[in-house]
Amino acid sequence: MPENRYVHGYSPRESERLSDQAETLTALLHNDTRYPAGSQVLEAGCGIGAQTVILAKNSPGALITSLDISEESLKCAGEKIRQQGITNVTFRQGDIFRLPFAPGSFDHIYVCFVLEHLTEPGCALEQLRPLLKEGGTITVIEGDHGSTFFHPENEDARRAVKCLVQLQQQMGGNALIGRELFPLLSGAGYQDVHVSPRMVYVDASRQSLVEGFTKLTFTAMVEGVGPEVAKQGLMDADTWNRGIAALYRTAEPDGVFCYTFFKATARK
Amino acid sequence: MPENRYVHGYSPRESERLSDQAETLTALLHNDTRYPAGSQVLEAGCGIGAQTVILAKNSPGALITSLDISEESLKCAGEKIRQQGITNVTFRQGDIFRLPFAPGSFDHIYVCFVLEHLTEPGCALEQLRPLLKEGGTITVIEGDHGSTFFHPENEDARRAVKCLVQLQQQMGGNALIGRELFPLLSGAGYQDVHVSPRMVYVDASRQSLVEGFTKLTFTAMVEGVGPEVAKQGLMDADTWNRGIAALYRTAEPDGVFCYTFFKATARK
Repeated sequence: MPENRYVHGYSPRESERLSDQAETLTALLHNDTRYPAGSQVLEAGCGIGAQTVILAKNSPGALITSLDISEESLKCAGEKIRQQGITNVTFRQGDIFRLPFAPGSFDHIYVCFVLEHLTEPGCALEQLRPLLKEGGTITVIEGDHGSTFFHPENEDARRAVKCLVQLQQQMGGNALIGRELFPLLSGAGYQDVHVSPRMVYVDASRQSLVEGFTKLTFTAMVEGVGPEVAKQGLMDADTWNRGIAALYRTAEPDGVFCYTFFKATARK
Repeated sequence: MPENRYVHGYSPRESERLSDQAETLTALLHNDTRYPAGSQVLEAGCGIGAQTVILAKNSPGALITSLDISEESLKCAGEKIRQQGITNVTFRQGDIFRLPFAPGSFDHIYVCFVLEHLTEPGCALEQLRPLLKEGGTITVIEGDHGSTFFHPENEDARRAVKCLVQLQQQMGGNALIGRELFPLLSGAGYQDVHVSPRMVYVDASRQSLVEGFTKLTFTAMVEGVGPEVAKQGLMDADTWNRGIAALYRTAEPDGVFCYTFFKATARK
């Protein structure tokens, strides 16, 4: 993995977007992950701690170690944790491919929105496996931008989303990784792999998702790569702007927006 | 609606496909629809009765009237019902746009895999609404071919699926209608519209879906329009064959297949 490269960047607006996203999606993605008191949990790739807060609150008795490669992100995550008065998280700087832990250190591993950014996600999963105690579990959550569809249908909007996929690919990532969790975990030697798709379905009867997901999470994320798309000439400005407008259009009263996350669990 | 035109045709293999589909998807799509004993239920567009059987079995005390435009389909549906010893279904030939019923005739209306074939689905929903008693409900189930994604990703397979969408469009239908149920029902004046997406997620740990859905339902459906695709020259034979092979490829042990149905309920 190229160090410190992250398709969405590290701007304050991006930090805000990640927190909006985490709040909107908490129930859908995280609320069925609860670790027992006293269990050792590794969060591999905690970023700015958007998920760390949820993880720690849902499992207040667990002892969580949150690892990230970026010192800057860790600083941000640490601040977030302190602000919330959370005390069961320890931060550790390190590379997911050169893990600074002894084999069998953890009861559970939690990996959320990380594999999509790695060139060799299967290899990362293989590296993580020995860190689990016998019978320990891994939980992986990823999105899949190719699962996106909406009404009204719009070709420019589709192309804009594809640009994001393309940029993430250029950086060695895979924005379509959600659908691959089953073969990735199976291929890395995990047992009892179970994948649960979690669709975010948004229509006008779900206003908090219209704001919190369609606009503030997804469309803001696509919009955020606009400068890079322009720089690389992936789409001309007019078509790009029409695409972004068409994505916002799906948040109107007769619009619909669908996106699917995948949550996988497996045993060592 | 052009009469008696149906994108998938009326062959025996198609009948078999529809029954395979109905069995595999029963739990996912139908098991939460139960009508009280004595209630009057209209199934608008019953086709060959694949859903009629499920509907009648799940609501054995309801009085079901199943309407279809095709006499041939009705004959087939009637036979199916008799074979199963079901006695709470009455068949009626008729057009969904010239409904042969008095206003307020029904407590509930059930419309499954029908709107996708209509040029004016919103108009059909408007026509159906007066048939409901006050407070009566409508339930609509539709697929959405644009919700399809799979692993391994394959451009030819995508194009093959798009051909099916295109053919259905040529015949006045809309294979992407699932995502539109909320605006369609709201626009037709229904209240309390609630849409529930139902994703069929298939990986190697779910063998009955690998066979029953990925292969026998979805890929067989796409394959079935091959002759028409060839006739119209929408795709050359080699690319088409590669596309179909790539769809079957998603049924291999490391493959994944996703498709989403939408189930909507609303009140008059």
